[in-house]
Amino acid sequence: MADVLDIQKQILTILNQIKTQLYSNPNFAYVNTKTNRNDLVTDRDLQIEKEIVTFLRDKYPQAQIISEEGLGNNPVNLAGLVFFVDPIDGTMNFVKCHDQFASMIGVYEDGKPIFGAIVDVMQNQIYYGGPQIGAFVDGKKLMPLADVPLAEALITVSNYLLQNEMPKYQNLVRQSSGLRIFGSAGIVFTRLLTGKEYLYIGKFKPWDLAAGRAIGQCLGIDVTTIDSKPLNMIKSQLVIVGTRCATQQALDVLSRV
Amino acid sequence: MADVLDIQKQILTILNQIKTQLYSNPNFAYVNTKTNRNDLVTDRDLQIEKEIVTFLRDKYPQAQIISEEGLGNNPVNLAGLVFFVDPIDGTMNFVKCHDQFASMIGVYEDGKPIFGAIVDVMQNQIYYGGPQIGAFVDGKKLMPLADVPLAEALITVSNYLLQNEMPKYQNLVRQSSGLRIFGSAGIVFTRLLTGKEYLYIGKFKPWDLAAGRAIGQCLGIDVTTIDSKPLNMIKSQLVIVGTRCATQQALDVLSRV
Repeated sequence: MADVLDIQKQILTILNQIKTQLYSNPNFAYVNTKTNRNDLVTDRDLQIEKEIVTFLRDKYPQAQIISEEGLGNNPVNLAGLVFFVDPIDGTMNFVKCHDQFASMIGVYEDGKPIFGAIVDVMQNQIYYGGPQIGAFVDGKKLMPLADVPLAEALITVSNYLLQNEMPKYQNLVRQSSGLRIFGSAGIVFTRLLTGKEYLYIGKFKPWDLAAGRAIGQCLGIDVTTIDSKPLNMIKSQLVIVGTRCATQQALDVLSRV
Repeated sequence: MADVLDIQKQILTILNQIKTQLYSNPNFAYVNTKTNRNDLVTDRDLQIEKEIVTFLRDKYPQAQIISEEGLGNNPVNLAGLVFFVDPIDGTMNFVKCHDQFASMIGVYEDGKPIFGAIVDVMQNQIYYGGPQIGAFVDGKKLMPLADVPLAEALITVSNYLLQNEMPKYQNLVRQSSGLRIFGSAGIVFTRLLTGKEYLYIGKFKPWDLAAGRAIGQCLGIDVTTIDSKPLNMIKSQLVIVGTRCATQQALDVLSRV
């Protein structure tokens, strides 16, 4: 079994380095588009992914790496130790706003989350933890979340779902306390971990979800697929991230539309 | 004519006091609903409005006051000096998140904006300025904004419009760089003032709009009614707040649906 405390030490070391360099210089030299005109990648995404992947390969040469910009080795299964890397989550915010973006690393062993860390760069904070060790922000323990009903929860629905399946999600928003959209999965996770929101629905890539899922589990945050299929951390999937009661009520609302 | 620099001094004095007390204790004793279950007011909204209104009545006994929680005198026209007061803008965020809420004061003379100030309480920042004096955040001058096209602008559309006129606004979001929703007009204005967003559409109450409009004018931020009627700062109105090119393109898109 992996030594979670050693993993925590190594991940916090590299992410503190990344935080320092991005916080002091949240800029980029060039930006390219990927799948569409609003799907961006900058030289900083690539440079930081390279730094993280190089660090992880040195410390954990046997591990697999699944990473947003493709410098990992894209394993076909989750056997052994697997690192999920998102160097800059919320690249559009990084480019347009120079805030509300995150760097994330999730660590899984034989498919199970063991550790995750999310850097909210411009707030200069690191959220981290895992099922065996608890959840923290900058060394301060995070408390288990209240199991509030959907009507008392601020929620986030991904832009993709709002654009493509509006009537369904419009109804869900109406049952909640309100909709918030930040443009970064990592930033939304920091709000879920601290009880500022209780529900987040989207089609997530593995690296969007891996770190937050690992940190949030011990606080009462579940990750539930909408189609009842098992969660699959290799491909994109439509999931609800949230506390139990709000998740069940959201599934009810969505099944009725 | 009113002495804008004296007004600036007085408004920053009272808002610094409000910022200090809210930042050190962003909590409340009770919360009530107003027009619907998600329209909230707490004891802190009332207490802070009372403090601001008492301060303004003492310093400017001849002035009129239009304020969110009703402690102003609700003038029927904008003759003379008028203060618009929003003690806590984003009360839902204040209640649920203890962040992303604002205190705002707008100052108008004979219907024209002369000064505005927005406190982003939990970021511990005050944005302020006016047409004659320029725009600032904590003493640092803000730069005039680039006149970017809609396709390069992050935008905010109010929850109300997204819920009630979705197809129209869905199309607008598609033409932009993306949708962001913060749940506080004041917070969105701080992002417009710093070029993080370029367009904000909503049905605004006078106190939602007054401060940001006064600060943003010298940076290139226009406030445009959607129905081409004159802007009216006494009642709620559907407006676009944004830089020129993005505003024109948004009006085009909305007229075509």
